[in-house]
Amino acid sequence: MPAVSPHPLPALFSHPVRVYWEDTDAGGVVFYANYLKYFERARTEWLRSLGLSQQALRERAGVIFVVTDARTGYRAPARLDDLVDVSVRLAARSAVTLTLAQEARRGDRLLAEGEIRIACVNAETFLPCRLPLEITRQIP
Amino acid sequence: MPAVSPHPLPALFSHPVRVYWEDTDAGGVVFYANYLKYFERARTEWLRSLGLSQQALRERAGVIFVVTDARTGYRAPARLDDLVDVSVRLAARSAVTLTLAQEARRGDRLLAEGEIRIACVNAETFLPCRLPLEITRQIP
Amino acid sequence: MPAVSPHPLPALFSHPVRVYWEDTDAGGVVFYANYLKYFERARTEWLRSLGLSQQALRERAGVIFVVTDARTGYRAPARLDDLVDVSVRLAARSAVTLTLAQEARRGDRLLAEGEIRIACVNAETFLPCRLPLEITRQIP
Amino acid sequence: MPAVSPHPLPALFSHPVRVYWEDTDAGGVVFYANYLKYFERARTEWLRSLGLSQQALRERAGVIFVVTDARTGYRAPARLDDLVDVSVRLAARSAVTLTLAQEARRGDRLLAEGEIRIACVNAETFLPCRLPLEITRQIP
Repeated sequence: MPAVSPHPLPALFSHPVRVYWEDTDAGGVVFYANYLKYFERARTEWLRSLGLSQQALRERAGVIFVVTDARTGYRAPARLDDLVDVSVRLAARSAVTLTLAQEARRGDRLLAEGEIRIACVNAETFLPCRLPLEITRQIP
Repeated sequence: MPAVSPHPLPALFSHPVRVYWEDTDAGGVVFYANYLKYFERARTEWLRSLGLSQQALRERAGVIFVVTDARTGYRAPARLDDLVDVSVRLAARSAVTLTLAQEARRGDRLLAEGEIRIACVNAETFLPCRLPLEITRQIP
Repeated sequence: MPAVSPHPLPALFSHPVRVYWEDTDAGGVVFYANYLKYFERARTEWLRSLGLSQQALRERAGVIFVVTDARTGYRAPARLDDLVDVSVRLAARSAVTLTLAQEARRGDRLLAEGEIRIACVNAETFLPCRLPLEITRQIP
Repeated sequence: MPAVSPHPLPALFSHPVRVYWEDTDAGGVVFYANYLKYFERARTEWLRSLGLSQQALRERAGVIFVVTDARTGYRAPARLDDLVDVSVRLAARSAVTLTLAQEARRGDRLLAEGEIRIACVNAETFLPCRLPLEITRQIP
């Protein structure tokens, strides 16, 4: 009988984001920095879907995640009222970091894709820490 | 011989703000919430001009300022590349709060005006505190 | 037999908003300007719930809504991961403007309340316009 | 007698940015997406220093710049009240795009560095355009 992980990792997590006035700029499209907000929201919801609360991690383990590297390619503009699906896929993992491949799509249309590396750090000193067990148990 | 305050309070403090892409929305103008950012920047620079650092206040006195009430009237739109002067005038003061009258102008043109009440609170509990002496000494 | 409006106006429209890192500031709470973003999102969803698209209004009628006056009272802080309900209630209406009473609550706790007046303007000139029929038909 | 360019390109353009409450997050540091705002402000000021206005480019040539690719490395956190120098250096140029190497420093300390590629596009269609002559004359 095969071993089954009690919390199987979703192959591809997806989170819907609506484009509001706050997200757009005078070019009529979503401002480029705001895709990093969308990517962050999706990462937070991905962690939440795994039962992981960043507030709880901070209180229990004294750690927070910080972004160490971000790369984004902008493929097509998003506009007011668009409904954008933002995905998260684990691309790599070290003792301290997670690297996530993320995409923003409107229907079939790829709007932006990126790769974001986040590191676990001490919330006070910002020095790198090993990923807590409650993370590594979820993310094989 | 008359007593002279060593740090006379400026009657009207003014701080220049440039409008960048991040500030605008798809209407082609500065997004309404961003005037509250401009007002906050000007308040911070006004405090700095009085020799008051919010970081130092937090470290020494354990207090921060929070906004309790904000009112803004929008009179004319600001656009990309505009240079906006944001003013601060002390309108009222209690033991715990400061009320500031603020304006955003492009040249002679009034773009937005507001009244913002800020309260001194404990940085941990958010409970109201008396304004620290280093503030009340500066602001008669 | 009483006349029944085919699209009855909801007495109180409510829209859920999650607090993400982007919304917070170094005080550990939601930055005060961001409640105006939350209020705007809820107004947009309220209009959408009435079958009204702002993009369509702009394309068909050449009009957009702009905020002319905003008043906000901040009652309690919101923090990372909070789920906030943002409500919209029509408080007043003129030929050109709508005044909306809005609240942000976490469960029973009132976090912020405000009153926002929006005006219908020509999207090019920003001159005031009468509210389009498709709005006034929905909002008696 | 040597030929001298009438508008010599600065080897390294630098623009100061102050960190305000709006820029920070509940981790107590500047939110990662906001470095892209800082980079954009510095690019705009760099263009302005070359006599180039983006509003004028849009009105005269019907073009705007959009970001096609962004890469950012985060090296050390910035905090409230920090004064950050944001630099711009031209790293590469094609007929349609400029690639800019950017850094954010507090004194000698490197906080973040990035490489941003911007493309000239038609403001209506977002289709790629050759860089206007007034740009290529300035940027050899």
